[in-house]
Amino acid sequence: MTDLLASTAELVGIPSVSHDEGVLADLVVSRLKACDWLETERVGDNVVARTSLGRDQRLVLAGHLDTVPPANNADARVDGDTLWGVGASDMKGGLAVMLDLATTTPSPSADLTWCFYAREEIGREESGLLELWSGRPDLLAGDAAILGEPTDGLVEAGCQGTMRLKISLRGVRAHTARPFTGRNAIHRLGVVLQRVADWEGRTAALDGCAFAEQLQAVAVDGGVASNVVPDAASVTLNFRYAPDRDAATAEAFVREVLAGTFDTEDGDTFVVLDAADGAPPSLAHPLLAALVAATKTDPRAKVGWTDVASFWAHGVPAANFGPGDPLLAHHPDEHVTRDQLERTREVLAALIA
Amino acid sequence: MTDLLASTAELVGIPSVSHDEGVLADLVVSRLKACDWLETERVGDNVVARTSLGRDQRLVLAGHLDTVPPANNADARVDGDTLWGVGASDMKGGLAVMLDLATTTPSPSADLTWCFYAREEIGREESGLLELWSGRPDLLAGDAAILGEPTDGLVEAGCQGTMRLKISLRGVRAHTARPFTGRNAIHRLGVVLQRVADWEGRTAALDGCAFAEQLQAVAVDGGVASNVVPDAASVTLNFRYAPDRDAATAEAFVREVLAGTFDTEDGDTFVVLDAADGAPPSLAHPLLAALVAATKTDPRAKVGWTDVASFWAHGVPAANFGPGDPLLAHHPDEHVTRDQLERTREVLAALIA
Repeated sequence: MTDLLASTAELVGIPSVSHDEGVLADLVVSRLKACDWLETERVGDNVVARTSLGRDQRLVLAGHLDTVPPANNADARVDGDTLWGVGASDMKGGLAVMLDLATTTPSPSADLTWCFYAREEIGREESGLLELWSGRPDLLAGDAAILGEPTDGLVEAGCQGTMRLKISLRGVRAHTARPFTGRNAIHRLGVVLQRVADWEGRTAALDGCAFAEQLQAVAVDGGVASNVVPDAASVTLNFRYAPDRDAATAEAFVREVLAGTFDTEDGDTFVVLDAADGAPPSLAHPLLAALVAATKTDPRAKVGWTDVASFWAHGVPAANFGPGDPLLAHHPDEHVTRDQLERTREVLAALIA
Repeated sequence: MTDLLASTAELVGIPSVSHDEGVLADLVVSRLKACDWLETERVGDNVVARTSLGRDQRLVLAGHLDTVPPANNADARVDGDTLWGVGASDMKGGLAVMLDLATTTPSPSADLTWCFYAREEIGREESGLLELWSGRPDLLAGDAAILGEPTDGLVEAGCQGTMRLKISLRGVRAHTARPFTGRNAIHRLGVVLQRVADWEGRTAALDGCAFAEQLQAVAVDGGVASNVVPDAASVTLNFRYAPDRDAATAEAFVREVLAGTFDTEDGDTFVVLDAADGAPPSLAHPLLAALVAATKTDPRAKVGWTDVASFWAHGVPAANFGPGDPLLAHHPDEHVTRDQLERTREVLAALIA
């Protein structure tokens, strides 16, 4: 059996900050090309390897090659059965498991597509997966997909949508010594922020997974000069919405939460800056149900947005499952343990055997 | 009698945006030096002319030479008995009246000090009056002072203090999908803004003048990234406080208004960025009482900060009195009328005759 802690350490040792995945892609290609049961293609810095055994079902297993920039944790460091370093948990541990299974499973129960893609950790529009969807969608075809993001050894089902909205409030400028001749736009912001902070939240239960919605102010701006009643102020909100809403209904909901705090007829604006819908759990799909069963643990909702949504948008039910603690992603203390890696391999091996 | 509308138009025609008062100062010096009852000195771009007649009292009449930058109103334009243009009201009308009286009153009832100073409309530390107080305080000595700022033909007594305060709130960063692991500093700002907006105000009655205090948010800032619960947010407040408070008691008062919305032991900060105390009305002083009587109108409180406070800080009671509407200061529609100019001259002439 491959020493997964050592092979993850090897991958951590190959820097692959977004846009710089070439060397790691080279290594992945060479390992996969050594397997004659795989048809391996490289598209840019994305690598896809597929079996073609004529099975009834095709399962896609996907993971991103890139990491966020290191935070004094560029080097892999093994201490006992724990590996520290950027990407240890997000998601070179997952890549190590994928590479091990891809190169040791010549006759899986379903046809498999192993997808290693670039530029996940940066702006969505630069994603290597989008590059494949637009240029080579045939390579991503499948009946279900598993994203190897860190999930702590259980299935994190679906994912929430995410939307950024900006509310800009108008006022009327005046001298601060005579504020009654104007209208303070920053003072108006107080009501909006209170409404956001006081929102009691909503949790949607889908396939037994609880998707807890979150509404957070992420930026605030306003002010003209120190003696001027400001005529403009704005707040940017991030709404994480359950996959039973789409962008349109999510926007309508936030408008309802904030009803009465802004008035578009008065010059205020409410603008959706961007939105990415989530994906429902789809745990009724046989391949995903089998994945859950193999973990012997209840699934839970994925709270962050992942490329599960990108597969779902193309009609492919998907779930997140990978080694490592999701709370450690992008954290200077990022690490993964031998046990986490081996349990993940065990579950996936049982699924595809 | 001098045509005051024409002479104000002449002064408006000489650009004197702050730091560029030299040409106007030249003209003022030449007019004053022509009067043998005046001892005229130029200090930088400040001009001071004094009588020395051995009178019991000395009255200082002061006005600033500079204007704010023009807003498409650089040229003087006379329409009937109204003059339009930058500085018409703030305060070249006042300067025209001062120049006329200075050059036509060889034997006033009190000794007079005519002070024309530079750089009032910009940062306090650059003020020409401060240059005189620090380098030639002898030139500003007097028993009382009148500042020729626009006051609409009545006495605007004393002035309010002004203070800028910045309250910075701490939070704990977290992913917006898991805000419960952090603390949103922008959400905390909502309570502060509500408290400020809801403050019912306070009015102090001094010498029959009502000083209405104002507390206004003038800037707000916060935010890290669109998927991050922000760990810092701040608001800057401008507090206009009545002259029965000094900076220390004003600060204590704002702390009391906001009590419970911030916690310095938790890392929040409450900082006074700058403060300038106001000045009490001092209307019991014989020269200022005589000024009020000459206007035949009740005085009112000056709501903005003026150099009345700078005289008061040096022990000289002072009041604001000049032609023009104070609400038009710095306004593109700034203007002054012949009647306003003549009434101001009449009042001051009666006072110093």
